[in-house]
Amino acid sequence: MLKSILENNENYQPGLSIDCVIFGFHDNQLKVLLINTPHSERWSLPGGFIPIDQDIDTAAVTVLNERTGVEGVFLRQFSTFGKIKRNENHFDNEALKHLDISPELGKWLTRRFVTIGYYALVDFSKILPNPINRNEIVEWIDHKEVPELILDHREILDKALDTLRVELNLMPIGYNLLPEKFTIPELQKLYETILDKKLDRRNFLRKITNIGILTKLDEKKSNVAHKAPNLYSFDKEKYDEVLKDGLYQGW
Amino acid sequence: MLKSILENNENYQPGLSIDCVIFGFHDNQLKVLLINTPHSERWSLPGGFIPIDQDIDTAAVTVLNERTGVEGVFLRQFSTFGKIKRNENHFDNEALKHLDISPELGKWLTRRFVTIGYYALVDFSKILPNPINRNEIVEWIDHKEVPELILDHREILDKALDTLRVELNLMPIGYNLLPEKFTIPELQKLYETILDKKLDRRNFLRKITNIGILTKLDEKKSNVAHKAPNLYSFDKEKYDEVLKDGLYQGW
Repeated sequence: MLKSILENNENYQPGLSIDCVIFGFHDNQLKVLLINTPHSERWSLPGGFIPIDQDIDTAAVTVLNERTGVEGVFLRQFSTFGKIKRNENHFDNEALKHLDISPELGKWLTRRFVTIGYYALVDFSKILPNPINRNEIVEWIDHKEVPELILDHREILDKALDTLRVELNLMPIGYNLLPEKFTIPELQKLYETILDKKLDRRNFLRKITNIGILTKLDEKKSNVAHKAPNLYSFDKEKYDEVLKDGLYQGW
Repeated sequence: MLKSILENNENYQPGLSIDCVIFGFHDNQLKVLLINTPHSERWSLPGGFIPIDQDIDTAAVTVLNERTGVEGVFLRQFSTFGKIKRNENHFDNEALKHLDISPELGKWLTRRFVTIGYYALVDFSKILPNPINRNEIVEWIDHKEVPELILDHREILDKALDTLRVELNLMPIGYNLLPEKFTIPELQKLYETILDKKLDRRNFLRKITNIGILTKLDEKKSNVAHKAPNLYSFDKEKYDEVLKDGLYQGW
């Protein structure tokens, strides 16, 4: 895969890559999809290069789709990372040898790379982590237990999470992270997990109801011991409207 | 300038540029610094390339500094633009000829470029638009009267303004856009100009005071016919604190 890209490197933007921070919600944990590559002991974000005939946003969708198998998810560019030495010495001669790549062919890879960061919110239950290279391990890892990452991927992940937390104040969230029917406590738990703090139950109920994106269903959650909580779904039309206009009340 | 970059193009990241949207506030107008280049009838944002030995953020500071002569201003990366054909046919043979650049040398320039957008807020009164190329015209233009721009620069400008409007809800603004001493009505006018809407005087006063970044001075505005309004300045320490932490109250 990598080798064939290098052999056809004129078909890719030089010195430019894409890295995706893919978030999923499961078991009250915010998980991140990470990859363990054969030539490194450390983990990395799923990433890829930019075909010369693809918009950068399309290339990001391709990376996401290759890794998760899902389409039409929430994907957003959040920042571009371009410190001078960010990938210096990442592919040393030993790594290239391990990948069966000649130093000559490896030159395209070892030059300075700037990378464009995207983050995605996906429905954990629909995703099958999808290794595209032999020997690769692809895993959902709790964002609080992320192991050491290659390059500046830790910085990229942190920035993605910061952005997600800020954007929680600007737009509705949950559509790609929760099952179709959910309870208010489940939605609150999602917010609490992303923000990593407890929220007041009444305040949350009031704020989330005021946004006007929830539909109360004529159904109660089953398998619940005590008082069964109501089930809700998102009013997708209103949700998309608010997503477009933003939910901040502003000045 | 451009020619010497092309002659030493191995010193620059290939296919990657920077464009700066530089905002200034003057005469109750939000102005944008634009350039009219000799080889085009249309105007453009000030931009530049990325020296191989500079971080992208440093390269952006360099562009801003070359164009405005100021340092230490508010500068923020907001988005990267990478549609496939965004710079297709921009430098045609005629344009290259006009710039005294051979087709061979021009190849580096005519390939696909992705550009990283930064926006800056600068003190209009301190800036002398600074043309670095002969025959260039550099001008402050009211953002409502921006003429036709090259490439996707209109899209970049619009996105910068959208970002600025959203960030007005996330952080304090004004430090780089107003004189050291100002009145509340002047600050309100800045917000109204950026948001392009009238704000309620009392609400604005309450909200802006609650942020806790203003120092009321023991001075009144002179040259004012009726009741002279109080002068204020920013408490820079608190301002920077809020800038760092964000002013959204959040969930």
